[in-house]
Amino acid sequence: MFNKVLIANRGEIAVRIIRACRELGIRTVAVCSTADKAALHAQIADECVCIGPAASRDSYLNMPAILAACEQTGADAIHPGFGFLSENAHFARLCGVCGIKFIGPSPAAIELLGDKARAKSTMKAAGVPVVPGSEGTVDTPAQARQLAQEIGCPVMVKASAGGGGRGIRIAYTLDQVEGAFTAARQEALACFGSGDIYMEKFLVNPRHIEIQILGDQQGNAIHLGERDCSVQRRNQKMIEECPSPAPMMTRELREKMGQAAIKAVKAAGYYNAGTIEFLLDEQGEFYFMEMNTRIQVEHPITELVTGVDIVKQQLYIAAGEELKLKQEEIHMNGHAIECRINAENPALGFRPCPGKITSLYMPGGPGVRIDSAVYGGYTIPPYYDSMIAKLIVYAPTRREAIMKMRWALAEFIVDGVDTNIDFQISLLHAPQFEQGEYDIGFLDRFNRE
Amino acid sequence: MFNKVLIANRGEIAVRIIRACRELGIRTVAVCSTADKAALHAQIADECVCIGPAASRDSYLNMPAILAACEQTGADAIHPGFGFLSENAHFARLCGVCGIKFIGPSPAAIELLGDKARAKSTMKAAGVPVVPGSEGTVDTPAQARQLAQEIGCPVMVKASAGGGGRGIRIAYTLDQVEGAFTAARQEALACFGSGDIYMEKFLVNPRHIEIQILGDQQGNAIHLGERDCSVQRRNQKMIEECPSPAPMMTRELREKMGQAAIKAVKAAGYYNAGTIEFLLDEQGEFYFMEMNTRIQVEHPITELVTGVDIVKQQLYIAAGEELKLKQEEIHMNGHAIECRINAENPALGFRPCPGKITSLYMPGGPGVRIDSAVYGGYTIPPYYDSMIAKLIVYAPTRREAIMKMRWALAEFIVDGVDTNIDFQISLLHAPQFEQGEYDIGFLDRFNRE
Repeated sequence: MFNKVLIANRGEIAVRIIRACRELGIRTVAVCSTADKAALHAQIADECVCIGPAASRDSYLNMPAILAACEQTGADAIHPGFGFLSENAHFARLCGVCGIKFIGPSPAAIELLGDKARAKSTMKAAGVPVVPGSEGTVDTPAQARQLAQEIGCPVMVKASAGGGGRGIRIAYTLDQVEGAFTAARQEALACFGSGDIYMEKFLVNPRHIEIQILGDQQGNAIHLGERDCSVQRRNQKMIEECPSPAPMMTRELREKMGQAAIKAVKAAGYYNAGTIEFLLDEQGEFYFMEMNTRIQVEHPITELVTGVDIVKQQLYIAAGEELKLKQEEIHMNGHAIECRINAENPALGFRPCPGKITSLYMPGGPGVRIDSAVYGGYTIPPYYDSMIAKLIVYAPTRREAIMKMRWALAEFIVDGVDTNIDFQISLLHAPQFEQGEYDIGFLDRFNRE
Repeated sequence: MFNKVLIANRGEIAVRIIRACRELGIRTVAVCSTADKAALHAQIADECVCIGPAASRDSYLNMPAILAACEQTGADAIHPGFGFLSENAHFARLCGVCGIKFIGPSPAAIELLGDKARAKSTMKAAGVPVVPGSEGTVDTPAQARQLAQEIGCPVMVKASAGGGGRGIRIAYTLDQVEGAFTAARQEALACFGSGDIYMEKFLVNPRHIEIQILGDQQGNAIHLGERDCSVQRRNQKMIEECPSPAPMMTRELREKMGQAAIKAVKAAGYYNAGTIEFLLDEQGEFYFMEMNTRIQVEHPITELVTGVDIVKQQLYIAAGEELKLKQEEIHMNGHAIECRINAENPALGFRPCPGKITSLYMPGGPGVRIDSAVYGGYTIPPYYDSMIAKLIVYAPTRREAIMKMRWALAEFIVDGVDTNIDFQISLLHAPQFEQGEYDIGFLDRFNRE
């Protein structure tokens, strides 16, 4: 096992990693920007090195400074957390060159899975379901119609150069396909100067379901079941649940998705903890979206339901140990929900609200876990993410978990900055959430109402 | 289920009960003394009634005021917590007379189990092992010797009127018995004016092992395994563990003790949550000490290891529901430790240290549970117990739980008042604790060193 690990991150995930390390008897080095000297992660690590000015590019993305901090403190491994350098293959490679273990997958796996097109074709070849669509461009209305016939309507006709919702048409019936193609091409030409069009099956109200996996360097891989992360705003998750409350989520579907995830791991030669993100449609069909090659914000809900400490597993795997957990030993018990507590103002378009926390009270008691990096009197700097805490609850049933979360949110007090706590309470009371009948469009519809 | 429950208590247990109630959709009424208006329990309940001045006898022990608060708020049940009126049969009976459900056992069961002599003879008759000894007094040295021969040495010869360690002699061999009897009688006559002497087997370095039980009003009872509460100072528990790390604690012994506990429950006609306290000697023999007819401070460690919410079970049982849990569904997984965090100064004989908490930081993260009733800026009043929080950790193994507790204690910051946190850290590092080789004398020996 490592002697000393440097945590190349900040905030609650840095705190989470420091806690895991010291429980394994590993010494810890925090790094911080000049804006983060009072941050919790900088205070609770055994050592702390200031690596640069507030701006992320000068500090938490500053590879030479981070590697120099390793050299200076004698750290033998780097845990990148999430965000920042966690999915940077170049950085992972540099660590190797410097003789420092990168606690993550191989640089090659990061590269492969970071390239969406390559990842998708790799997965398709390995038998992992991907959203059906054209290979390359579709060039004529007739071709479009023929492809739509093959993959089934509705289909999305989309400009390769598209963005911001322009150059996109959806055809719900075969008869609409040729018209959609022509309209999308015209708009694409007008807007982007390119008429290249591709097509994909259009998923109606899918859910975002992701499978947590663990793979070791010996080629063993297991999955830890799913998380439902459909409650999201502009791809930013807000509430996550384990297991998924989707009516189509049966033990059989979980196992099928889990096996697909393991195929993905093996196809990519992946080791480390990781997450395979799928879209799940109303018919119970699921499609590979992407793989996250790092620990995720929402990992605690899986930890509570499976009893596995995922960060400790990352450390074991990076140290070259073989996975001790067997698939048949993984059982999902109870229900966990995570609410991200952000310093932001939901009424002003969720505008971040940094500043001084003048008073802080966090709930506790049975089944309440808080992963946070703030404390009373702490000033949230304006340079980074607005998430200040993760409130996670665990109970035998989803009903009890919802009740626990509602009340834990109601008890939570953050004075001095705006937060999304009241907004989270309103979500927890929304009938659609209560009934588990939500998809990735739920939060946007909720906000419009 | 109840509509509204009044919690006749304060501190963390009142908060714990309020949380359980509201998660079940029950409205809550807190009561507080004039000294407790800013207390957490008074703030988070749906309603709060001030029931009298600071002194406990005028407020938390003030039965008419508490019953009047029920009347005034329309509460249909009272949860007494622990301490205060929780084991007061008269109060339980008064509740019944007023048509208010007392969330606890029947008054008759409280009376029976609160009378040590009656409890012991009831248990003996039911086949629950009790410490062997004389029935009534022993009158001559020869009688004493004969009894010692029957129950085996060492024996304790003890003045019925004794106290403070006087009028007690221990005979390690048969030859010492007559001399011990004569000496104890002389001292007893001199000190207490009564020469009445009784005898009991003397247990060498026993452990305090207690079994958590649940019994319903239909006569069903189950046990939730044991807690080891041997780390205590003058009968005040300081650290509790579940399961016990005692080398003799096997699955078989646990089941044997659990079955004895269930016998005790049935013999007493007991319903509610409850705890049967046993002494366990080095040979693995155990003896009934007493039964606590209420929720206990250390209940969370059992909750973490079994997954059962004991306070919610109390509410179900009091409402007349049949136990849904079956004995074969109760499994003990992992290891939990609780450290009581007290505002006291260990260097000054553990003198309580009330006062204002100027700054407070409590640890969090995976496997950390905090049951507390304090917050930053809160002033601990001098009138009540010095316990300000319970820090509870849960991990797959005892080793990991110890590491987690050490670091969680190290992270804990309470400014403004003295606490026993550093003392707890030193206990967690004591080799005897680390190896699980402690008994009820451990803490006193540790303090003398």
